Amino acid sequence: MRLIVGVDLGGTNIVVGTLPEDGSALYGQVSESTPVAAGPEAVVRCMVELVQRSLDETRRELGQARVDVAGVGVGAPGPLDTASGIVLLAPNLGWRDMPLRQRIAAATGLDATLDNDANCATFGEWWRGAARGGRIVAGLTIGTGIGGGIVLDGRIYHGASDVAAEFGHTTIDATGRRCACGNYGCLEAYASGPNIAKRALEELESGRPSSIPRHVGDDLRRVTAQTVYAAASAGDELALEVVRDTAKFLGVGIANIMNILNPDVVVITGGVTQAGDRLFGPLRMEVGRRAFKPAVDACRILPGTLPGTAGVFGAAAAFKVQRWGAV
Amino acid sequence: MRLIVGVDLGGTNIVVGTLPEDGSALYGQVSESTPVAAGPEAVVRCMVELVQRSLDETRRELGQARVDVAGVGVGAPGPLDTASGIVLLAPNLGWRDMPLRQRIAAATGLDATLDNDANCATFGEWWRGAARGGRIVAGLTIGTGIGGGIVLDGRIYHGASDVAAEFGHTTIDATGRRCACGNYGCLEAYASGPNIAKRALEELESGRPSSIPRHVGDDLRRVTAQTVYAAASAGDELALEVVRDTAKFLGVGIANIMNILNPDVVVITGGVTQAGDRLFGPLRMEVGRRAFKPAVDACRILPGTLPGTAGVFGAAAAFKVQRWGAV
Repeated sequence: MRLIVGVDLGGTNIVVGTLPEDGSALYGQVSESTPVAAGPEAVVRCMVELVQRSLDETRRELGQARVDVAGVGVGAPGPLDTASGIVLLAPNLGWRDMPLRQRIAAATGLDATLDNDANCATFGEWWRGAARGGRIVAGLTIGTGIGGGIVLDGRIYHGASDVAAEFGHTTIDATGRRCACGNYGCLEAYASGPNIAKRALEELESGRPSSIPRHVGDDLRRVTAQTVYAAASAGDELALEVVRDTAKFLGVGIANIMNILNPDVVVITGGVTQAGDRLFGPLRMEVGRRAFKPAVDACRILPGTLPGTAGVFGAAAAFKVQRWGAV
Repeated sequence: MRLIVGVDLGGTNIVVGTLPEDGSALYGQVSESTPVAAGPEAVVRCMVELVQRSLDETRRELGQARVDVAGVGVGAPGPLDTASGIVLLAPNLGWRDMPLRQRIAAATGLDATLDNDANCATFGEWWRGAARGGRIVAGLTIGTGIGGGIVLDGRIYHGASDVAAEFGHTTIDATGRRCACGNYGCLEAYASGPNIAKRALEELESGRPSSIPRHVGDDLRRVTAQTVYAAASAGDELALEVVRDTAKFLGVGIANIMNILNPDVVVITGGVTQAGDRLFGPLRMEVGRRAFKPAVDACRILPGTLPGTAGVFGAAAAFKVQRWGAV
């Protein structure tokens, strides 16, 4: 069976793995911190080295001196142009108009394709994760930002100009919190990792008692969303409230997606899923309040089951669709 | 050429017309007030009579004693089940589980199909109106409520359970105005016809000067959205402000649709389009602020060009797709 290399380029890490074309295994999983400060060339070089290392590891794991590699699927932050393989703008990487597909193809000597990272994460969960079997899948990837993807009848839905599924910048409160994008009331301004931490800090600064400071040696600059989940697990009231509020904000955003798309699966990936039922319980309740009943009845809302590798699986699956027409 | 009868069943009016299968003309356009108070049987009887009258008129207009009728496409309020042809729930009509397709087919002796009324209005604008040529079309039908439709690659997009495109009940302000549906902050709670009138009345009752009362003989119970548009046309400051606010609310809702669906056309139908550029100007500005630039650049936002008949055209087009696989 031929192999496909999947590359998930993020603002923090680059993760690479090698899959048989049926996606039944993941070999040679390697990763590095993204060398953003060293510039675009260093990032591309790091991606290429990781592809080579992943293939070396794969040969070792399979005990084969030669493997047949069909190509490399790359998932990258956008907006980007899938047809030309160009990343138009990636503020976290400091990139503009980077012909990434062509650069990876030239440096590896392999065929390559490009798609959006959050599209790939959703596609991976559909192909080999929690959303398997879904006909209409909406995925939310919650990290530094909130990305999204839509999978329709086994293909990534791109929209008219490759920017469909930007769920993080849908408005849930038109006069609400300022978002990093400049607008007011985006879902991301409430429920991304840094904004979850920020809401907890605002409460702490107003003097509310909480065990959160103890989790970070009283250095509040170190409070992250993970700190909040850990404190919530330990029963901290303030942290539990922040998680409940997060669930409600996500519930509003997801109800909007459901009233527009009427999907059969919504899959949520990223650190926020660590909060487990404390998150998913109130989230499903808020969705039940706001989405149409037939939409609620038709849809499962699930945490992803491929933490850290959904994007790798999805980038490889996107390669298959772009080159061979289907997964 | 064979003919198709299109039926647009609304809570206020029933409109029926007869089209050649290529949609190049509209014959025998007839309508009646919907006899809601007389009960479900009276409404069905009225629909059937209008179908017969439309066909009689069509024969007269064409000067033919016999015409070849392929069937009847019906657009009705939902939620409904397109596959079984049953209207599950239509609060404005007082209906529950009405097997409308089968009833119309039995009473007319013609093949019949059923689809959602707002889906049909959008499909009609795509087939023969403002959204012609669009690959991904989102339509908003603004009247007593706000309905929606999505047309994807020449077909109505239904979602997993026939409730896709319920744009009126997407949240634009999670802590905002109470909607008739029981939720807070739905787009419909701000921008439907009655809610446009309501916002104007709230301002009038707070004592603001305006020419609006003069338009209704000082009987404020008679203020409708149309009154507001008329006063805005005459330069009334308060009315102009209500129209501008309406544009902003619609802009938030449409930006959400654009950040999720990334359509190439958004078409708006209903009385609100009477406000013209006074509405579309600030609406496009708000969308430009909130939607991703590649989504804004790829999308035209247009008023419909089939006032009163988009639903008839679309119901006939939906018949074609359900029976023959394509328009």
